[in-house]
Amino acid sequence: MTLENYAVPNLSQQLAPNIRYKIDQKTKPQGALGALESLALQIALIQNTLNPQLHQPMMLVFAGDHGITHEGVSPYPQAVTAQMVLNFLNGGAAINVFANLHGMHMQVIDSGVNYDFSEHSHLVNAKIGKGTRNFLREPAMRFEECELAMARGAELVAAHVKAGANVFGFGEMGIGNTSSASCLMSVLCGIPITECVGRGTGLDDAGLAKKVEILQKALAQHALDGNQPVQTLATFGGFEIAMMTGAMLAAAHHKTTLLIDGFIATSALLVAFKLQPNVLDYCVFAHCSGEAGHRKLLEYLKVKPLLDLGLRLGEGTGAALALPLLQAAVNFLNEMASFESAGVSQKC
Amino acid sequence: MTLENYAVPNLSQQLAPNIRYKIDQKTKPQGALGALESLALQIALIQNTLNPQLHQPMMLVFAGDHGITHEGVSPYPQAVTAQMVLNFLNGGAAINVFANLHGMHMQVIDSGVNYDFSEHSHLVNAKIGKGTRNFLREPAMRFEECELAMARGAELVAAHVKAGANVFGFGEMGIGNTSSASCLMSVLCGIPITECVGRGTGLDDAGLAKKVEILQKALAQHALDGNQPVQTLATFGGFEIAMMTGAMLAAAHHKTTLLIDGFIATSALLVAFKLQPNVLDYCVFAHCSGEAGHRKLLEYLKVKPLLDLGLRLGEGTGAALALPLLQAAVNFLNEMASFESAGVSQKC
Repeated sequence: MTLENYAVPNLSQQLAPNIRYKIDQKTKPQGALGALESLALQIALIQNTLNPQLHQPMMLVFAGDHGITHEGVSPYPQAVTAQMVLNFLNGGAAINVFANLHGMHMQVIDSGVNYDFSEHSHLVNAKIGKGTRNFLREPAMRFEECELAMARGAELVAAHVKAGANVFGFGEMGIGNTSSASCLMSVLCGIPITECVGRGTGLDDAGLAKKVEILQKALAQHALDGNQPVQTLATFGGFEIAMMTGAMLAAAHHKTTLLIDGFIATSALLVAFKLQPNVLDYCVFAHCSGEAGHRKLLEYLKVKPLLDLGLRLGEGTGAALALPLLQAAVNFLNEMASFESAGVSQKC
Repeated sequence: MTLENYAVPNLSQQLAPNIRYKIDQKTKPQGALGALESLALQIALIQNTLNPQLHQPMMLVFAGDHGITHEGVSPYPQAVTAQMVLNFLNGGAAINVFANLHGMHMQVIDSGVNYDFSEHSHLVNAKIGKGTRNFLREPAMRFEECELAMARGAELVAAHVKAGANVFGFGEMGIGNTSSASCLMSVLCGIPITECVGRGTGLDDAGLAKKVEILQKALAQHALDGNQPVQTLATFGGFEIAMMTGAMLAAAHHKTTLLIDGFIATSALLVAFKLQPNVLDYCVFAHCSGEAGHRKLLEYLKVKPLLDLGLRLGEGTGAALALPLLQAAVNFLNEMASFESAGVSQKC
């Protein structure tokens, strides 16, 4: 992938006054729909129309394994990544339930799981390797592997855009990947690792202390600074995170709406943002995770999430749960009557 | 209405351990679905089953006019109440859009609008009077009118329960009704009126100061204390608020799930709570409104809303927007695989 292919343009503000006027003529006091009004404006700007539509909402769940799990950073064994991918394919996970409920088409992308899956209609084989290397000892990926992962993510999204999708939820599965996300955040935001680390899928106090210690060692060893986003991604990232970063860049490049899930997805977006700052204009932040670090990462990006429900599951679950709010925003813009059409008096 | 007919039973906790066990066996770390797990537990307890279902979700929008509008407490003319009811019946309001989107059947209840509506399939004529009296000068209703309004609301809900509905959203429309809600809150919670008053549909600073002054005068004149909930409701309440209070009591009496919207709906619930404290166990608080006072009222009730989107429209819009979260909670409980059924390893 040459990153130039996925340059993200400025969001044109040309239609903004017209969209705002349309919103303000709806039969409600000005601003009374709060965050939904901002959302309607944003989606209309992204689609550059007064009548935006959500087409074929996609939930892309990227899965990969992590060498760092050998250091005991997660209470779950690495095998759970593959087991959960099979659970996704069998329709039994939380993300299946929520994606089904909201009419999102779900695809599971094997970015680098340590398991050989059989073919399945909902599985994309984009495997870069059977898990990353242990980044306490060496970089998680080679630079070229990282670029390849990004390119495959971008190509995947480009194909969906070609088929008509214009809104993408990004989810992930990868035992150990909160460790990657914490390191990416620490390096790229310049925030001490202690403020970037949480309990992941459920570490106790001792486990958390050990995780912090391991990540501190790893960060000291690689000594990267915040100006090398792809190098940082290659060093700490999972294959699934790198593929998500590429997918997000392509989704913004193609002017679709990106629905960003929790801590891991936001860490992938952070890399994309460091490469193409305009990407933020195309993002809706679905929720604030219960995973420590996510709130601070959202603050760093100066963005406000839609939901705050204490979710800490990943998989894209928060993104799927937020989709109805996007649909509500689009529908009020398209379907509500105006003061004039409804014969309702305006403010005295 | 004899209130004894709508006694609200304690929520039985008998199934709680079994429901919690079912939730904890789902393929996710314990607690990872945050507020949705509490919601699944609550709805399962209300329905007293391990497999709860949402049936025929109803959006009941109660409308009424307020004599206090003659004092200039709202920037909109009283006529807007009737105009908005017609807008509801024509499908052009925000609540129509959101109720349609989420498959809620909507009914508009004329509790006391100052207008004669033609018959309409979605309109219930339960009119108590053509607007309340001006409570700056005299009580808004007679005590018997208030009881009648509550009884009609209760009967309406009882009929829907008989027809199979088990989840109710409560919305309202009534120019001037934030003034009623603020007075109810101030008296029943013992909170100074200045902390209960907001800009309603859009007062400026001068309008807000005038509203506070008028409500202070009205409160001083009637000198009620917090131990007379129905008397307080009759003095300050709108017909639509009283009817909502009765409807909420009946909905909890019949062990359905109540989806409480914003400031006005919560003020109606406050009266119900003062009469039957158990009612809270059946309530899901949909959102925290942008209307000043609502956050404090939710704190007083010690409850946590699902959404916080700066909405301040009423109509039941927040309740309708929250319904998908209830559906998601019920669906994950019913549809997700367990660790055992999916063959996923548990925590080490």
